Amino acid sequence: MNHTHVTSVGGTKSHRIFLLLKDAILSGRLPPGRKLPGEIKLAEQHGVSRVTVRRAMEALRESGLVARKPGLGTVVLEQPLDATVMTASVSNLLPNMVKMSQASQVRLLEFSYVKPSESVREELGLGAGDRVQRSVRVRMADGKPFSYLVTHVPEYIALNYNEADLTNTPLFALLERSGVLVDHASQSISATLATHEIAEALGVSVGSPLISLTRVVYDEEGRGVEYLDALYRPDRYRIQIDLNRTGDEEARYWEPRTPDAERAPQAREMSPDEA
Amino acid sequence: MNHTHVTSVGGTKSHRIFLLLKDAILSGRLPPGRKLPGEIKLAEQHGVSRVTVRRAMEALRESGLVARKPGLGTVVLEQPLDATVMTASVSNLLPNMVKMSQASQVRLLEFSYVKPSESVREELGLGAGDRVQRSVRVRMADGKPFSYLVTHVPEYIALNYNEADLTNTPLFALLERSGVLVDHASQSISATLATHEIAEALGVSVGSPLISLTRVVYDEEGRGVEYLDALYRPDRYRIQIDLNRTGDEEARYWEPRTPDAERAPQAREMSPDEA
Repeated sequence: MNHTHVTSVGGTKSHRIFLLLKDAILSGRLPPGRKLPGEIKLAEQHGVSRVTVRRAMEALRESGLVARKPGLGTVVLEQPLDATVMTASVSNLLPNMVKMSQASQVRLLEFSYVKPSESVREELGLGAGDRVQRSVRVRMADGKPFSYLVTHVPEYIALNYNEADLTNTPLFALLERSGVLVDHASQSISATLATHEIAEALGVSVGSPLISLTRVVYDEEGRGVEYLDALYRPDRYRIQIDLNRTGDEEARYWEPRTPDAERAPQAREMSPDEA
Repeated sequence: MNHTHVTSVGGTKSHRIFLLLKDAILSGRLPPGRKLPGEIKLAEQHGVSRVTVRRAMEALRESGLVARKPGLGTVVLEQPLDATVMTASVSNLLPNMVKMSQASQVRLLEFSYVKPSESVREELGLGAGDRVQRSVRVRMADGKPFSYLVTHVPEYIALNYNEADLTNTPLFALLERSGVLVDHASQSISATLATHEIAEALGVSVGSPLISLTRVVYDEEGRGVEYLDALYRPDRYRIQIDLNRTGDEEARYWEPRTPDAERAPQAREMSPDEA
């Protein structure tokens, strides 16, 4: 039980501390120049020995996240901006198309026809015997995976495309090509931990934080035509929401900012990551 | 280094497995009725002993998340919907006002005037010598914490309110009361892990997943008037985004759904959680 295994669920305790601090640095909560607490304080906070803390610090230094400054202690270093961070604007659901189109690839991990789970069946409004086409894809930019997409599409729609289509065409385009009249979508954003399988597919440690998005797409008759479970690496993907404060003085409220005229041509394309 | 400590960063390995599976169940990725992999498979996947897996299973059963079914193995149980899950719609940034107003309290953990970090200073467009008012609040519903809010407001605005104001009035209302003409806001959503301090404040295990939201609010002259770092418990908070597919046949695109007429009165109030 005490053997160590860096990519295992527990990892070593020092690896867990490394992950936590790395996450705090990459998310900006520990900004460049910030001094980290001392070894004794960190050991106390996390209920581990100083040796464990020291190993985590070593790993942070080796990763170029922190450096020891004489007379100051260990401080956070400026991080080079990862060129492959995508930003999806909420009004167009559109990751930066320029970056995306340059080098976006798909790995299709699964393509099958299955009986849906109870919740997928309900969300899609399917009958007891209906089947769905389930696919699992990993989307990459510049060869680096950033999203893990599990989709469910009712069988009667999915029969219009095949495995090969799914590796080179966004599912959303396949739906519209199949004659589906997409009308609206409902999305919920949350956060989750990378499990073994997903960690491997996305190239992160087990237990790393992931952005989680669930989307149900409906056609003009209100039928569910796609159920998506998407997981994103937060270091390579962000969801951006811009709002305007509008209304009169009596009653002011927020409204999502719609795409600018210049951005509209982009907004009219569906993101290759989406669906 | 090998002593165990349930709330420590590593926790025990069995606790980490417990956390991962609990997260998968609460997020719906392991739906009710789903059979968990066997002990041997889980032990292999996570590089731990079967004893470790067994302990994690025990903890899941004690938490009412799974049950052993004769002849079937261990299956996921239906989860009672947590009555305190908030949903913030993206168009109004508004958690369910009914639930919120019934029982929303604030714990003010910090209130101070400080020199901002480089990134906060830049986002708010402040000068080198300018100070900000920094506050840390935990927002609770029915006595249960669901968000951890760190705000930075330029000193010249913040001097218009005090500590007591912040515990009983949303910061956003205080800004408008101070004469700030709020014009627009920019938000970014991500995911992160709970560190020691935040885990304690939100009542979760260290290393649990959290929704992370960064918001900068601007006035009519484009000056930054508030910088917010918010962390949300995903089991008690969701961000909801509804979209309509609009445009003509030549060029269709997504547009955020604006609040319905009936919902508009709510949308005009600022959420007590916000800012």
